[in-house]
Amino acid sequence: MTAREADAEPAHEARGKVTITEIAREAGVSVPTVSRVVNGRSDVSPSTRARVEDLLQRYGYRKRPAAPGTRAALLDLVFNDLDSPWAVEIIRGVEEIAHASGVGTVVSAIHGRTGDAREWLRNLRARASDGVILVTSALEPVLHEELRILGVPLVVVDPAGSPAFDVPTIGAANWSGGMAATEHLLSLGHRRIGLIAGPPRLLCSRARFDGYRAALEGAGLAVDGSLVVPGDFHPESGFTGCNALLDLPEPPTALFAASDQMALGAIEALRRRGLRVPEDMSVVGFDDLPEVRWSAPPLTTVRQPLADMGKLAVRTVLRLARDEQPDSPRIELGTELVVRASTAPV
Amino acid sequence: MTAREADAEPAHEARGKVTITEIAREAGVSVPTVSRVVNGRSDVSPSTRARVEDLLQRYGYRKRPAAPGTRAALLDLVFNDLDSPWAVEIIRGVEEIAHASGVGTVVSAIHGRTGDAREWLRNLRARASDGVILVTSALEPVLHEELRILGVPLVVVDPAGSPAFDVPTIGAANWSGGMAATEHLLSLGHRRIGLIAGPPRLLCSRARFDGYRAALEGAGLAVDGSLVVPGDFHPESGFTGCNALLDLPEPPTALFAASDQMALGAIEALRRRGLRVPEDMSVVGFDDLPEVRWSAPPLTTVRQPLADMGKLAVRTVLRLARDEQPDSPRIELGTELVVRASTAPV
Repeated sequence: MTAREADAEPAHEARGKVTITEIAREAGVSVPTVSRVVNGRSDVSPSTRARVEDLLQRYGYRKRPAAPGTRAALLDLVFNDLDSPWAVEIIRGVEEIAHASGVGTVVSAIHGRTGDAREWLRNLRARASDGVILVTSALEPVLHEELRILGVPLVVVDPAGSPAFDVPTIGAANWSGGMAATEHLLSLGHRRIGLIAGPPRLLCSRARFDGYRAALEGAGLAVDGSLVVPGDFHPESGFTGCNALLDLPEPPTALFAASDQMALGAIEALRRRGLRVPEDMSVVGFDDLPEVRWSAPPLTTVRQPLADMGKLAVRTVLRLARDEQPDSPRIELGTELVVRASTAPV
Repeated sequence: MTAREADAEPAHEARGKVTITEIAREAGVSVPTVSRVVNGRSDVSPSTRARVEDLLQRYGYRKRPAAPGTRAALLDLVFNDLDSPWAVEIIRGVEEIAHASGVGTVVSAIHGRTGDAREWLRNLRARASDGVILVTSALEPVLHEELRILGVPLVVVDPAGSPAFDVPTIGAANWSGGMAATEHLLSLGHRRIGLIAGPPRLLCSRARFDGYRAALEGAGLAVDGSLVVPGDFHPESGFTGCNALLDLPEPPTALFAASDQMALGAIEALRRRGLRVPEDMSVVGFDDLPEVRWSAPPLTTVRQPLADMGKLAVRTVLRLARDEQPDSPRIELGTELVVRASTAPV
């Protein structure tokens, strides 16, 4: 050891700990190379390894060991697409509970494509994920079966209310929400209430429609078929649907759009005709996406507790991973009417 | 072997493969228990293990082995909060490239809290993450140092343009964007152009302001200090800022809000006063969040390529993990003016 090296040691000690950066500098190698040596990986040349290990030993560098007997817990949160306005709300809820439980949340999108789903499944196995939360109904039955073979617990978060899975499913109370939206408009004196409905193949669309009908019937009114137009939950269909209703000989005075995005499209259709919300038309949405607090006007809507659905999904999948049963194979969380500025008395 | 068991075997074979569910049923244990035996875990009683292993062998069940020599690649994508309107766009870009590279994306939020950040760091180590993409400037220097000690490559995605990190940073061209927004309004004949600015402590706010000033100066105009009001990028501050501008003796005819959310707040302030966009006031935002395509009216704005920033961050962090250097320690991706319906000639 030279005098200079002997001097170096106390200096390092004085700073409390030696960093990999300092060791890399002294060994004349990169930081990732030192990291590879520390982590016992094989992709380092023997001479480099020897030089780095010498320095690690000389400076008393010790990799802090992982807690004994633990491995990194992970769960997989899988969307069909990440452009869904729901996505970030659900991620927020899932991450909060997973983080608090020391579990990492791996977020994936499979785009309804078999290739992407198979690739995801391969990666899931390689990373030994402890559970899967699926926010899509698009996973093929064969992949469900493969998850079962792997013994990985699965929970479906399903704001769209898909037909029964044979796995625990967490949805929202769509029927009650549709009824609450319609009753609100009835309470404001509206009698001609239009509906821009969701795709009939989705259970949630049918439940929201039935809630709309139940509220009308509760007020002694029948559904007027001409006031119900189809939509697909996207803004464009709200725009088109609202225009269709406005073209009726006697348009409605109020509108229930079965998604917030369709409500925004409807408001834009009204604006283009110079009609005001709520003075000329009341509009109620469904979802309570964060952005509708600042639509013009702020939207009256039915809140789906998306973050809470994500939280419950984590708790359920962790219970399944502990070999416990979920409370119920199908849970619906309550929806809630949020009154803002897009509705007014007739 | 009984006759019934002998019959069962071909039946299983005929279906192509035996599932863990079938084995669990036959062994009279749960699916997770069979999974534990298959995965060689210790938390199964010896007698149960023996019974399950017998069945696994009898039905020729084989766990498909992981590819040799690989371990599951993971990267960590860390936000301060997941309620940022940017979050889902960045996640989408990161996930796309990570997925294509066979890398899982672990999404976390640390809420600017030291405890959460330390917990995240512990989990990061336990899961042996291969890289970190940070979408926040809130990570304390001490955590930066700990990541360096762990030898985990780090890239910062920074739409807010924070002061220099000593790690590769990917941002957006804020100055050019501010100039493009203002030049667009000038080209429509506006001369009194208000600015709702972002927080001056953020570099992006200063860059957007300087772009605004450069465009005005290019047109031979000076900045009128009374037309510049402070904001914090949230909708409420756009609402307040717009009201302040409307209360001026001579309000502006056009408005550049340095974030889309402030633009939405400004539009709501105008609506409440019965003023129309763009007839009474043109409004330009900044970000191009997905929702402003359906604001009323659809918003003219400056697009930040958030998904592209996420994609580049993945490519950069994977390069660093391979011990390659990034192209540049600080990259800015171009911004782009998107003209919709919220701007019109004066």
